Amino acid sequence: MVDLSSTATARPKSITMSTSTEKSSEHLHIERLVETKLPGSPIYAFLLTPVRIVGASKGHVVARLPLSENHMNSMGSIHGSVTATIIDWMGGMAISSWDLRTKSGVSVDIHVTYQSGAKTGDEIEIEGIAERVGGSLAFTNINIFKVEDGKRGRVVVTGTHTKFVKGSEPQKAA
Amino acid sequence: MVDLSSTATARPKSITMSTSTEKSSEHLHIERLVETKLPGSPIYAFLLTPVRIVGASKGHVVARLPLSENHMNSMGSIHGSVTATIIDWMGGMAISSWDLRTKSGVSVDIHVTYQSGAKTGDEIEIEGIAERVGGSLAFTNINIFKVEDGKRGRVVVTGTHTKFVKGSEPQKAA
Amino acid sequence: MVDLSSTATARPKSITMSTSTEKSSEHLHIERLVETKLPGSPIYAFLLTPVRIVGASKGHVVARLPLSENHMNSMGSIHGSVTATIIDWMGGMAISSWDLRTKSGVSVDIHVTYQSGAKTGDEIEIEGIAERVGGSLAFTNINIFKVEDGKRGRVVVTGTHTKFVKGSEPQKAA
Amino acid sequence: MVDLSSTATARPKSITMSTSTEKSSEHLHIERLVETKLPGSPIYAFLLTPVRIVGASKGHVVARLPLSENHMNSMGSIHGSVTATIIDWMGGMAISSWDLRTKSGVSVDIHVTYQSGAKTGDEIEIEGIAERVGGSLAFTNINIFKVEDGKRGRVVVTGTHTKFVKGSEPQKAA
Repeated sequence: MVDLSSTATARPKSITMSTSTEKSSEHLHIERLVETKLPGSPIYAFLLTPVRIVGASKGHVVARLPLSENHMNSMGSIHGSVTATIIDWMGGMAISSWDLRTKSGVSVDIHVTYQSGAKTGDEIEIEGIAERVGGSLAFTNINIFKVEDGKRGRVVVTGTHTKFVKGSEPQKAA
Repeated sequence: MVDLSSTATARPKSITMSTSTEKSSEHLHIERLVETKLPGSPIYAFLLTPVRIVGASKGHVVARLPLSENHMNSMGSIHGSVTATIIDWMGGMAISSWDLRTKSGVSVDIHVTYQSGAKTGDEIEIEGIAERVGGSLAFTNINIFKVEDGKRGRVVVTGTHTKFVKGSEPQKAA
Repeated sequence: MVDLSSTATARPKSITMSTSTEKSSEHLHIERLVETKLPGSPIYAFLLTPVRIVGASKGHVVARLPLSENHMNSMGSIHGSVTATIIDWMGGMAISSWDLRTKSGVSVDIHVTYQSGAKTGDEIEIEGIAERVGGSLAFTNINIFKVEDGKRGRVVVTGTHTKFVKGSEPQKAA
Repeated sequence: MVDLSSTATARPKSITMSTSTEKSSEHLHIERLVETKLPGSPIYAFLLTPVRIVGASKGHVVARLPLSENHMNSMGSIHGSVTATIIDWMGGMAISSWDLRTKSGVSVDIHVTYQSGAKTGDEIEIEGIAERVGGSLAFTNINIFKVEDGKRGRVVVTGTHTKFVKGSEPQKAA
């Protein structure tokens, strides 16, 4: 049998654990973006106001969101438009965590696959992975899980979000 | 040269024109769904309240929506989450126009490609085409155009929305 | 009722009909690409050798392909990999028809939805529409239909193909 | 700081390592499918004949493929149609590894994002993850990496493949 232990997993990158009480620079950067940018976007403000950043490292962001009536469809499950919105938002955050940029360009395409539901009162965990951030294009994968027993549980939705990022790079100091 | 005039275009189906003032049964059905269902879905109510059905036939719905601040991103252009929401909604409407069903099942996947922007004060035209509505799956294409000089102008977004429709068929009368 | 006759359809663009026996410059250009480029690509040569260009105008190409055993899956229907290959190829052709460029850049993403099947002996019609060809990105829609009674029949597959086209523009004469 | 160590990663599932020389039942099952089914599919036989299964567990398959001229485009990089074909194939294998079924239904949609290239002489690693296999639909994610220094290196392509699996379940013994 081939020994798979030599097969390093390239993705998803794991969040750097900290034994101290300090947050990573990416974590602080994403929290700042949530504070300063969410209120200026009506749809994000409407749906994402209670989002909480759980951790972040280069190209990797994890957040949690408690679900309320605003997130539901007429059947009482998380609305497909809500998860699409989350994938839109988290793709930008994952890119911003790459190099602490504040802008993340414009969307090229978003793809969402719907796997299971979640209800009011549930909490979801949202994971964004920027797999590649180039000079023109950035590619991200986003997964949404239900939180079960305090931990990441079943997949609710997976998606991809590709952005055109030219011009959104962080400015070099003079 | 091959004569292309024999190549009937299967899609998009054209809206049946009416020289009278009467609306089609599909048109009335979709208007009723907008009236009765939008208010029960917080995200649809937030974004789609001013939507107006322009016309409908079997598997084909056309609507218009004036854009306001609620639809914008932080750069002052139509928000990617808003167009994703429109594609989610219109996929269901196109399926409902197929056979006047009131439910249209659950989403399997949504794909959106972003081609150009639109601003506050612009009006967009949304076209939904249900290409196939089977016993298990229904496939739809949705196009969003900017209205220019009162007519359909440049493409803003195109998308697809596939739904699992088993159990959403109209009930047969007893 | 709103008069829909004022709603010009922006897409798909119709193939310019010719009453003469002459082919359009786009038609000749795409035929030349098929002749010169298909043989250099093993997978295109394997699957697309018998393809025939039916017509072309700016941003719009129509082709037909008779299906043989090479196109089938183990269940005797057109293989999902074959239709994905066709969408890959036709996206490039639609972009090339935009301004008679010979290159069409590199793929960003391809999305395919599978609606119905086709068998050995059937002929399919492939329609490519370049909706927007910009300096960086080009967006295309591709539809595959079964030919029935010599005409475009039911949809087999629809897809999108987005390419990064920077540097593929036609060279200006010196 | 929130302790992320309590956040179990639901995906991708890791291949069960074996310290013995024995292959898992999933590994043997997928190898058998490669032997018996690839030859009957012309496009798979053309492109995937040298594929080698590296490991498999429930819902997770890893394979490697050395790249030859047949896999290249006219620019000397891995062809977008080839990676789309690999995503088509691997989605089915990941589903088959779920419960040792031999059939995996029909495709609903395939989405591919293209991130980087690979050349003749390179080897790629293909990872298929069946995230959910239900009674009607199965959802898979597929990643293709370049093998670098014998290990999984940079991402070449990521994709999703959703299939309608009703009727493909393993037969219960009488």
